[in-house]
Amino acid sequence: MRLGIDIGGTKTDAVAIDDAGGLSQRIRLATGFGSIAVVETAVAAVARIGELTGLPASGFQSIGIGIPGMVDSASGHVAHAVNLGLERLELGGELAGRLGVGVRIENDVKAAAVGAYHLMGLDGTMAYLNLGTGLAAGIVVDGRLWRGADGIAGEIGHIPVDPNGVICACGQRGCLETVASGSGVARQWRTDDPLPVRSLFAAAADGDPEARAIKARLAAGIASAVRVLVLTVDVDSVVIGGGLSHLGDRLLCDVHEVLDEWAQASPFLASLSLPERVRLIPEGSPAAAIGAALVGES
Amino acid sequence: MRLGIDIGGTKTDAVAIDDAGGLSQRIRLATGFGSIAVVETAVAAVARIGELTGLPASGFQSIGIGIPGMVDSASGHVAHAVNLGLERLELGGELAGRLGVGVRIENDVKAAAVGAYHLMGLDGTMAYLNLGTGLAAGIVVDGRLWRGADGIAGEIGHIPVDPNGVICACGQRGCLETVASGSGVARQWRTDDPLPVRSLFAAAADGDPEARAIKARLAAGIASAVRVLVLTVDVDSVVIGGGLSHLGDRLLCDVHEVLDEWAQASPFLASLSLPERVRLIPEGSPAAAIGAALVGES
Repeated sequence: MRLGIDIGGTKTDAVAIDDAGGLSQRIRLATGFGSIAVVETAVAAVARIGELTGLPASGFQSIGIGIPGMVDSASGHVAHAVNLGLERLELGGELAGRLGVGVRIENDVKAAAVGAYHLMGLDGTMAYLNLGTGLAAGIVVDGRLWRGADGIAGEIGHIPVDPNGVICACGQRGCLETVASGSGVARQWRTDDPLPVRSLFAAAADGDPEARAIKARLAAGIASAVRVLVLTVDVDSVVIGGGLSHLGDRLLCDVHEVLDEWAQASPFLASLSLPERVRLIPEGSPAAAIGAALVGES
Repeated sequence: MRLGIDIGGTKTDAVAIDDAGGLSQRIRLATGFGSIAVVETAVAAVARIGELTGLPASGFQSIGIGIPGMVDSASGHVAHAVNLGLERLELGGELAGRLGVGVRIENDVKAAAVGAYHLMGLDGTMAYLNLGTGLAAGIVVDGRLWRGADGIAGEIGHIPVDPNGVICACGQRGCLETVASGSGVARQWRTDDPLPVRSLFAAAADGDPEARAIKARLAAGIASAVRVLVLTVDVDSVVIGGGLSHLGDRLLCDVHEVLDEWAQASPFLASLSLPERVRLIPEGSPAAAIGAALVGES
């Protein structure tokens, strides 16, 4: 049995995966804020899954954690997990001390990539395109995470695609993330709705021209991300996940429309069959927790 | 002993590689034009290397060919090799019939990627950025070619990076290839010089403002290609090859300048150490021929 935990900004998912790769247990806790509370949340999640499975921490074949921010998976060090209120944390070391066993720490998008590959039964090469506050991808090759030379493979949110675009938080101009992410939408569409994207889609459905323009830029930005992933890595599939994926088919249809339009203008692009490569992660999948359980497997 | 052949638009290089991976023989022939002449050129290259090594075609551990165009390496089929005057050719089949042994056919940029990795003694992950008439990359992971799902990995020349750019031959607008390639320069810099890039650099050195602007766009486009490769695949190194690489350090310095400028504006980009990852292929290296000899090795 393997144990995986996904520490999110507000909620923490934890799962137990049996030896056949099936989901055996699944729980959800509120995430504490700040370093100490985050460690406590992880310890509590291990304890709850332990009760449900009857296993002590040392009884699991592996324990893995997915967490936002800059993660050094070799050392278990986490930095810049802003939403969790932690600047620097030796999460791997802290948890090893508390639990008495080694714990693998992974960036949550990378963990979700491995989890999505597994739970969707994919093969070949996949990019998991996470559309949350930011935009980033996790790349999986034959079931294994592709980290790259310095662990930054898939950081495509900071590829600029418009010299006249706005300045990105990273200091560059016109990055994919400035249009194809939750923060990109929130910057352009001012609303009191805690979910600006929901408000945007509602206004666009009502015919608001500004909302339609922002929504079109969002779809074009996502389609651009797909194009970058296919033309560079040539992935078999691009799985869209993250907060924006809750928009479901409304989002996917918009992206397909853009890709179809591009294919009309470019026989080369048409030959790549981009729309067929893109799909959504199934709603409510604990992909990051499952991936955290599996990421050290191979 | 392995035999590799690089069939170029005007010249064909052939090499014999010994079991230790060293360059044993190297010859150069003129390339014939059209399907029949291209096959004859390859047969002649095998015969010449055969004389020099004393080996019949069947005496080589492998024979590989790098050739421009769309190459299906599984079937040995070549298409759209416009500069060679061939629209479709069963090159693998034709040569197997003539030589009595199997021949591996590979796209020349992909072959050069493998050759560059080998002759530069690299390890980890490398992208070979070919700046010729077009722009394309070959990606090598731990010495092996990364083809992707459909053999299009590295086709980054057709990633658009400017919504206001010119229409590319592929039908899209503002592709990297429209600014960072020989054809991109030739379109912008009208000259009688058979090497427009040489003329461009001379005029820029003389202070011509238009030449300087085109040269700056060339460097920014190459730097953009490097950024795409690092942010997507996170390659350890990007090796610049192809016709434009003959500009040598003048080109490399321009690219480094752009990357340094970007790093000033973006701490994120600065953290990627892009300038340190970029280098030029050594002048006069028969990379594609060496790669053609080695590409099927693993």
